[in-house]
Amino acid sequence: MRNIKLLLEYDGTSYSGWQRQKHGSSIQGKIEQILSQILNKSIKLISAGRTDAGVHAKEQVANFKINSTLPVEKIKIALNSLLPLDIRVKHASLVDLDFHARYCAKRKIYRYYIYTGYVVSPFMHRYVWHLPLMLDFDRMNEETKFLKGKHDFSCFKVKKSSVKDCVREIFRADLKKKGRLFQFEIEADGYLYKMVRKIVGTLVNVGRGKLAPGIILSLLEERNGLKPGPTAPAKGLFLWKVIY
Amino acid sequence: MRNIKLLLEYDGTSYSGWQRQKHGSSIQGKIEQILSQILNKSIKLISAGRTDAGVHAKEQVANFKINSTLPVEKIKIALNSLLPLDIRVKHASLVDLDFHARYCAKRKIYRYYIYTGYVVSPFMHRYVWHLPLMLDFDRMNEETKFLKGKHDFSCFKVKKSSVKDCVREIFRADLKKKGRLFQFEIEADGYLYKMVRKIVGTLVNVGRGKLAPGIILSLLEERNGLKPGPTAPAKGLFLWKVIY
Repeated sequence: MRNIKLLLEYDGTSYSGWQRQKHGSSIQGKIEQILSQILNKSIKLISAGRTDAGVHAKEQVANFKINSTLPVEKIKIALNSLLPLDIRVKHASLVDLDFHARYCAKRKIYRYYIYTGYVVSPFMHRYVWHLPLMLDFDRMNEETKFLKGKHDFSCFKVKKSSVKDCVREIFRADLKKKGRLFQFEIEADGYLYKMVRKIVGTLVNVGRGKLAPGIILSLLEERNGLKPGPTAPAKGLFLWKVIY
Repeated sequence: MRNIKLLLEYDGTSYSGWQRQKHGSSIQGKIEQILSQILNKSIKLISAGRTDAGVHAKEQVANFKINSTLPVEKIKIALNSLLPLDIRVKHASLVDLDFHARYCAKRKIYRYYIYTGYVVSPFMHRYVWHLPLMLDFDRMNEETKFLKGKHDFSCFKVKKSSVKDCVREIFRADLKKKGRLFQFEIEADGYLYKMVRKIVGTLVNVGRGKLAPGIILSLLEERNGLKPGPTAPAKGLFLWKVIY
């Protein structure tokens, strides 16, 4: 038995998300279908995390186990020749049998792009949240500082969520700005469902003056009656890197 | 009567090219259709140049004349709200009545991207010619130097072309390299149909060792029996800037 690790990059625009589904075209489904074809055996992938419909990945990690002795480099080449061009295998490698893409992941980095100019370039529109507004960068930047550390993120939980333990540790959260492009990056040991997009929506509302500075601190302290901002759209979000 | 100049940016992937056609979706057709809708009058656009199917534009220029007194900024906003996201109006301005997007253009800059790595990023594949080969950058770079100046470019003419005067002046032609990404840029007073793509195909064959260095010089001197390289694919080509 061999354990194969794949480093994947994808443009999520045309997909119903990472997770295999009965209906709709998922990234997992697409890769599994082609892997099964190549290896002549039903293959199930384990990934570092599920990305939602429309979310992209600069570096997603997945693994699967096989008996086949086909060299990993050949698997990579075969996959890239059969996969659509919006999903690529950047690297394939042989790893220890106990490597598990999800359980072994120590940290994950997500990145979110917001474009505040009036006209979004045709080469950029699939990858940013277009907000042609004045956003107060300094205020948003200050706000990101409340994220760092170990907190209970129940306030950023989706309503229907059944997750019990909402404690996650944020190692880094920062905002950068290049002209009218805002880039938010966050590194944590894990995330609740839609957590990054809810944080971004909250930061944006602070930047617009719709939420008071310090709202994130208040939310994390579970002050009653406080609500985070809206969930930012999927298309600005990238799973940037998984750290093992 | 007012003359309106549009600065356009588009991703050519989904279009049959700039020029309006009976069948197929053209960029010109799309913009004219929406302009006519906004201004309630049939509008015909004049552009700086026609881009082929799959060719992109970072800055295309077009103009049209109208009687309407609708402010140009409103025309821009209305166009951007109705156009698909892969075509954008970067700027709209009122210009002299004798401004003609094609006749007044002094120089046009085209850019071409080649990617020589094994795996093309999903975020890049629509915009590069993927050639996972060893290309000799220095040799190609040397070869670009023969392009500069005023030459008869008959050698780069497509067979069915009826163009008589093939003399064009190249002001600048250079090759750059960032990692595995090659960028060719050319600035000229005009171009023959598919000329840039034929030049790129020739440079690539020099870089692959399939054509001898100096081939461009020989081709321009009309030495018999010599053929340029293949026509490079449309998707790596960008109309980069039009200079008036």
